[in-house]
Amino acid sequence: MSAQPTRPRRLSEVDGWYHETDVAIVGFGGAGACAAIEAADAGCAVTIFEVASASGGSTALSSAEIYMGGSGGTQVQRACGYEDSTEAMFDYLMAAQGDLADEAKIRLYCEESVGHFEWLVSMGAKYKESEHKERAIMALTDDCLLYTGNEKSWPFREIAAPCPRGHNLEVEGDNGGPLLMGLLTQQVEKREVRVEYNARALTLIQDDEGEVHGLVVRIDNEERNVRARRGVLLAAGGFVMNEEMLSRYAPRLKRGNIPIGNPGDTGAGILMGQGAGGALLHMSEGFISVPFYPPPSLTYGIFVNAQGQRFINEDVYHARLMDHALRQVGQGIYLILSHDDYDHPPFLNAQVAGTGETVEEMAEEVGIPPENLRHTLDFYNAHAARGEDPLFHKSPEWLKPIESPYAALDCTPGSGVINPYFTLGGLDTLPTGEVLTMEREPIPGLYAAGRTACGVPRRADGYASGLSVGDATFFGRMAGRRMAEAPARD
Amino acid sequence: MSAQPTRPRRLSEVDGWYHETDVAIVGFGGAGACAAIEAADAGCAVTIFEVASASGGSTALSSAEIYMGGSGGTQVQRACGYEDSTEAMFDYLMAAQGDLADEAKIRLYCEESVGHFEWLVSMGAKYKESEHKERAIMALTDDCLLYTGNEKSWPFREIAAPCPRGHNLEVEGDNGGPLLMGLLTQQVEKREVRVEYNARALTLIQDDEGEVHGLVVRIDNEERNVRARRGVLLAAGGFVMNEEMLSRYAPRLKRGNIPIGNPGDTGAGILMGQGAGGALLHMSEGFISVPFYPPPSLTYGIFVNAQGQRFINEDVYHARLMDHALRQVGQGIYLILSHDDYDHPPFLNAQVAGTGETVEEMAEEVGIPPENLRHTLDFYNAHAARGEDPLFHKSPEWLKPIESPYAALDCTPGSGVINPYFTLGGLDTLPTGEVLTMEREPIPGLYAAGRTACGVPRRADGYASGLSVGDATFFGRMAGRRMAEAPARD
Repeated sequence: MSAQPTRPRRLSEVDGWYHETDVAIVGFGGAGACAAIEAADAGCAVTIFEVASASGGSTALSSAEIYMGGSGGTQVQRACGYEDSTEAMFDYLMAAQGDLADEAKIRLYCEESVGHFEWLVSMGAKYKESEHKERAIMALTDDCLLYTGNEKSWPFREIAAPCPRGHNLEVEGDNGGPLLMGLLTQQVEKREVRVEYNARALTLIQDDEGEVHGLVVRIDNEERNVRARRGVLLAAGGFVMNEEMLSRYAPRLKRGNIPIGNPGDTGAGILMGQGAGGALLHMSEGFISVPFYPPPSLTYGIFVNAQGQRFINEDVYHARLMDHALRQVGQGIYLILSHDDYDHPPFLNAQVAGTGETVEEMAEEVGIPPENLRHTLDFYNAHAARGEDPLFHKSPEWLKPIESPYAALDCTPGSGVINPYFTLGGLDTLPTGEVLTMEREPIPGLYAAGRTACGVPRRADGYASGLSVGDATFFGRMAGRRMAEAPARD
Repeated sequence: MSAQPTRPRRLSEVDGWYHETDVAIVGFGGAGACAAIEAADAGCAVTIFEVASASGGSTALSSAEIYMGGSGGTQVQRACGYEDSTEAMFDYLMAAQGDLADEAKIRLYCEESVGHFEWLVSMGAKYKESEHKERAIMALTDDCLLYTGNEKSWPFREIAAPCPRGHNLEVEGDNGGPLLMGLLTQQVEKREVRVEYNARALTLIQDDEGEVHGLVVRIDNEERNVRARRGVLLAAGGFVMNEEMLSRYAPRLKRGNIPIGNPGDTGAGILMGQGAGGALLHMSEGFISVPFYPPPSLTYGIFVNAQGQRFINEDVYHARLMDHALRQVGQGIYLILSHDDYDHPPFLNAQVAGTGETVEEMAEEVGIPPENLRHTLDFYNAHAARGEDPLFHKSPEWLKPIESPYAALDCTPGSGVINPYFTLGGLDTLPTGEVLTMEREPIPGLYAAGRTACGVPRRADGYASGLSVGDATFFGRMAGRRMAEAPARD
């Protein structure tokens, strides 16, 4: 698969239109659906081109958790007793994204997040006024609210008042993605948006001044020119399925083994935007994780490296843990547990690296210097018994001595343990979705959202579940509105 | 300062030439000088445009160490008893550059490295047939050969047979840079290459097919069009002096405090190349270091993080050490020493964070959990006494117990300790210097070398002193030759 930008077709070479619309959208996932709804509600003719034979995209494959809060709290947050402040949410996201943060996007996302919640409800999304209090990646019950990031973990808990912001739909099991995309698809259909399935977007149509007027799609094996009077939105996902782009831009992600995304996440949208002059941003960044919870009890354990040393507070989000695991020297990442705290982690697939009645027995089996692991455990246990973690500041709720018999799970990347990954770099855009050139000037007529753009979430060590679908749906809407405001070209 | 690509001037808008030459070179540092010599030796008319009032660039500010070896060894390596193999050099550099390695460039660099040594000698460079055996960043004596990277450090020593490959010129003190640039400048002058000083390259001149035909320079406050019949070489340094480019591309480097480069390292060459369609590569990468040696005795110490834990074998190259220091959680990086091993590190500027007759006394003063630092030292000492480092595999020559009285130097980034940095990302090029588009097709007439290109050295944790000047001089020559082979355009 290519990593080359896709050259646009010149407007002057277009000899006729197969179809004319106000707003053309590439990709019928979360971002594309939300953009279509907003643009249609603003009175635009909208057409979606989806390469697959059904809507969904990677949003349908996700749990469709959405990260929302601020403004005193969503209805669910308030019902559960949380008064979430916009500043706390902003401070948290800014700290979590660190030196890669896009302040304008984060600011808008935080300020409008409760409004986004209400909009989703108006689309038919049902959120139960209940909290899932167990540490989890998603709620497998029909409960709504849960902590999905590092809000309660050091150092973030000292930077901003923690608040749960992950919102799960009212549905049992990991079925939020199909449910949300089902609802959004219904809303799209209700609006008589035209949807072309099995339609592969090939390239953009651009005039000599750089303005984008439409796109070329392949339908029934024929190339067809589509005119978009107000704008084209690229909402075609990230590039996790494009080996060549990964090698060129994000080789570190290849230490993962489970790409998260749909087969259309080939970077096609990014490459089309780039071909039209769009700038790429933070292409080396991505999500990569080691999903060691649920069950929550594994968080009572400690992660150690090949030296038998801890390297992070284990109550962090699973991608933050993985990011730090990848920074360690030597080969070997292990989760050390009291056997009594072991419960099967359904997403982890880790082999047992060693067990023992004594630390030394386990350490020998694992291949960690026993004396060092012994110290790590002794030190951890002595302080944990007092509710303290002077080294990494793990929260007291997860501190208790690790006791015999012991078990060590092999979480070394490459050992067979599950390390999911997806890309976070993409086109540089304004909060309105306008695609920017290297000069940071908008390309007239061109928009991007979802993982085709570089959005709010930009790094594994600051990720939280619900940020990607949150960013895709929210900024998809922003792009839909902005396109509707654009004057229609004759 | 801008991070925007510089738009080229259209050839059709050029109404006359101020000057015509075969080969036009932007920048009279190491890369530009070597390219000029090769092109002139191949019979070309050559003109160099240098923004400063003298030659030098960042090469003159460096120690002008050059990383060379392979093919059985340079004359100096052989005289010092080293038979360096091309495969060992190749394997080392490939491992050191890891998932960012450019195999074609590394292969050519290793195969032709002894020839490069001989060429430098033919230019007047004098290398004494002697080895500087002390661990150092550069030889401050007039000795030539020394280890300048991680060759002898784990894990590299297990991947390729170690060999010293840093070559210092025969000169006392840190005076290699001016000496080398003096020699190369003489060689350039001998060849009657035309040199325009105080000449700022503004942009390239490109035709509608993308071919580069020359450049626009500002001389005496006037814009002048220069025609280059065979090619333009961008050898204008990196972007360490461009705040906006650093923020956009390499924010991590801003954790350093001493930019290494000349005031002209503004990324101007990179932005001109990008404006003409050149692709950028690995722009987030750079060199960043903590120069804790010389004196070599500080390597008997151990580096610990805020937890009082070691994190790397301390016999590594100083940039590898810094790269790993930046990966640590929490605030605090300390070098723990026996007071008897302390000697003033001339480049470090570290404050004493604590001292003590006992480990606990020192740990309290530093603010590290004493019990943990005690264990770290006890464990290290017990094994060091036997010449072992089971945790990080520090080489036996640097292993001995750390004894009372103790001292801790504060090497925390931001504490005032010296953390030099420079950029390693740049234009994507072939080994011939041809600048590549995103499609990895050469842009006819356009070349780049030195830190304007993304060369052999691509990451702090795999850097070795001598790689940047080595890469600049070697690939500058390759570009000079290739331009000379290009047919002259009428």
